[in-house]
Amino acid sequence: MLMQANEFTFEVIRNDSGTRARVGKLTTPHGIVNTPQFIPVGTQAAVKTLSSEDLHTLGSEIILSNTYHLYLRPGHEVVRSAGGLHSFMNWPKPILTDSGGFQVFSLAELNKVTEDGVHFQSHLDGSRHFFTPELCMEVQNALGADIVMVFDECLPYPIEHDYAKASLRLTLNWAERCKKAHQNHQQALFGIVQGATFRDLRMECARELARMDFPGYAIGGLSVGETPQMMYEILDYTADELPAGKPRYLMGSGPPVDIFEAVERGIDLFDCVMPTRNARNASLMTSQGVVIVKNAEYAADFSALDPECSCITCQHYTRAYLRHLFKAGEITAMRLATLHNVHFMLTLLVQIREAILSDRYMEFKQSFLEKYRKSVD
Amino acid sequence: MLMQANEFTFEVIRNDSGTRARVGKLTTPHGIVNTPQFIPVGTQAAVKTLSSEDLHTLGSEIILSNTYHLYLRPGHEVVRSAGGLHSFMNWPKPILTDSGGFQVFSLAELNKVTEDGVHFQSHLDGSRHFFTPELCMEVQNALGADIVMVFDECLPYPIEHDYAKASLRLTLNWAERCKKAHQNHQQALFGIVQGATFRDLRMECARELARMDFPGYAIGGLSVGETPQMMYEILDYTADELPAGKPRYLMGSGPPVDIFEAVERGIDLFDCVMPTRNARNASLMTSQGVVIVKNAEYAADFSALDPECSCITCQHYTRAYLRHLFKAGEITAMRLATLHNVHFMLTLLVQIREAILSDRYMEFKQSFLEKYRKSVD
Repeated sequence: MLMQANEFTFEVIRNDSGTRARVGKLTTPHGIVNTPQFIPVGTQAAVKTLSSEDLHTLGSEIILSNTYHLYLRPGHEVVRSAGGLHSFMNWPKPILTDSGGFQVFSLAELNKVTEDGVHFQSHLDGSRHFFTPELCMEVQNALGADIVMVFDECLPYPIEHDYAKASLRLTLNWAERCKKAHQNHQQALFGIVQGATFRDLRMECARELARMDFPGYAIGGLSVGETPQMMYEILDYTADELPAGKPRYLMGSGPPVDIFEAVERGIDLFDCVMPTRNARNASLMTSQGVVIVKNAEYAADFSALDPECSCITCQHYTRAYLRHLFKAGEITAMRLATLHNVHFMLTLLVQIREAILSDRYMEFKQSFLEKYRKSVD
Repeated sequence: MLMQANEFTFEVIRNDSGTRARVGKLTTPHGIVNTPQFIPVGTQAAVKTLSSEDLHTLGSEIILSNTYHLYLRPGHEVVRSAGGLHSFMNWPKPILTDSGGFQVFSLAELNKVTEDGVHFQSHLDGSRHFFTPELCMEVQNALGADIVMVFDECLPYPIEHDYAKASLRLTLNWAERCKKAHQNHQQALFGIVQGATFRDLRMECARELARMDFPGYAIGGLSVGETPQMMYEILDYTADELPAGKPRYLMGSGPPVDIFEAVERGIDLFDCVMPTRNARNASLMTSQGVVIVKNAEYAADFSALDPECSCITCQHYTRAYLRHLFKAGEITAMRLATLHNVHFMLTLLVQIREAILSDRYMEFKQSFLEKYRKSVD
């Protein structure tokens, strides 16, 4: 049963003494999310290769799904009939749906962006659609996630200041319309800070969104080609502009080093396809760094993938067996690898929370990265 | 730890009063197999889409892997170094390895069959190999399965009597050589009855193999294109020719109706890729018959795939969700479907054993098939 809207709360439990890192508790109608937290990506109502039981076993507290994809297939009305995404995919814990802005601008064949919305053709069958902030809210309402996102224009990198400035007006206008259209108070609507790599635009966007008073804020339009240093700099001034009492969500970043850099700049939530996508390509994160487990050197390596890992894959299988499964094209390889990488990310965030709580965040960051960077990221 | 060779035993627990069906207990160094039993196929040391934990959860008592495939990749020496297949794939229960005869004659590019063995090229990389009965035993010895199979010539259907007769001489000669070369008494070597669709050849082969005294016998060369009626007829006279005190294994048959027809002719073991292969194509066996779950009619069907099924998939997911996953190309669909189909087969065999033990085999067969045949098989 859904609970009342006022059950969406965010509480900062502890601020790190040396950085802006913090541990928080996000309460949603479907349960609690401890922050900083990593959100596994289940674009099409499934985290690729995993079942909801797998995610439960892994200890995932929240997952992400995608409005654009589910609107096209199976259609939000099907999900609504199922009783929403939680029921459709049998996942009783919190869900966040991305607005689909990023996908409309990257996957679909774009026909026209107007003040009113976006005309596009489906990447699946070429069918024509018109997405507006209002439709985006209607679709997300049908999907029924705990956290929903405003519809925004996503820009490529690099881009001219003039274009980015004009786009920002549209994005802010759409954010306002999303807020107005959003009538389901069981769902928390997050604003998304855009503004490309321009300080003035990012700051303006953050301030304007803060003025609109959202229950949470995302920082979007990053990890699109800019350097890590540029991203950290943007996080530096943007995060500070966002209310300290609300959760901050960095969209689409996943490499451990980025997680650390963002956490110490006050970011609370992360999502990224990297851990799952890389897993399917045999690229596995371990305490000793990245292991490309299909490499020949592991053909007769009967040790665990990561001796320090407690996941199902590391407890039960060897590098040699994983390599064999990848070389033989067995789907089981992709699942065992995904189980490991998601476990790795979730565990990293557990460790980060523990480090902040015991006031040794920078110490943990240093010791973790020292070992992890022995290998290529 | 491996146990003594004399721990491979077969005991008939109960003979059905109305048919030749029987319930038996096969004891191997890695545990007991209750018969009649279905053996899930893990060709490349993995049952496609599943992990060993999954098979354990499903209650699988034995699995099958393939000598030809593992010889080519990862190579039997890698598996030997791992401590054998049980250890390589972390499956502590019984394993049966097929000799690879079928694959050499169906998958590889065949260069020449001689009295001595078969020259062939790998279907993976075109590399040249020469398989003899002796090499086949050496490879199976390295793999370390509990049950291993003789190397035989597999014939296509239809075939001339003359050719089949000559081939039978070769197959019997190779069976003799396999028996001689097989020096690992931790592994039970089964003979394979060939003889195409010719009664005289099948009977001769069965008698000759029985004379050689194997601990178990397979009936091969079926399900290759002959009609079901022809197969049942061959089973009729062949099974009777094989010692009643030894297990009988019908290779490659899986449709429920064939299982029933074979069980009542005295067959104890079955393997087939059908349940797993069909699952990956969204064809699912249910108590009401076959459901092609990606069909449009299930788009908003929020009921369980099979209301009578207790598998993970039926307990947790709906037809609509499975359809969505298949349509969206999600790997999770294939795994959830495979979990169901393997559970279905294993449960069918549990029910068959129970029916024989309670002396209502034909009654159970009739009631099962009546419901099952409502749909197309």
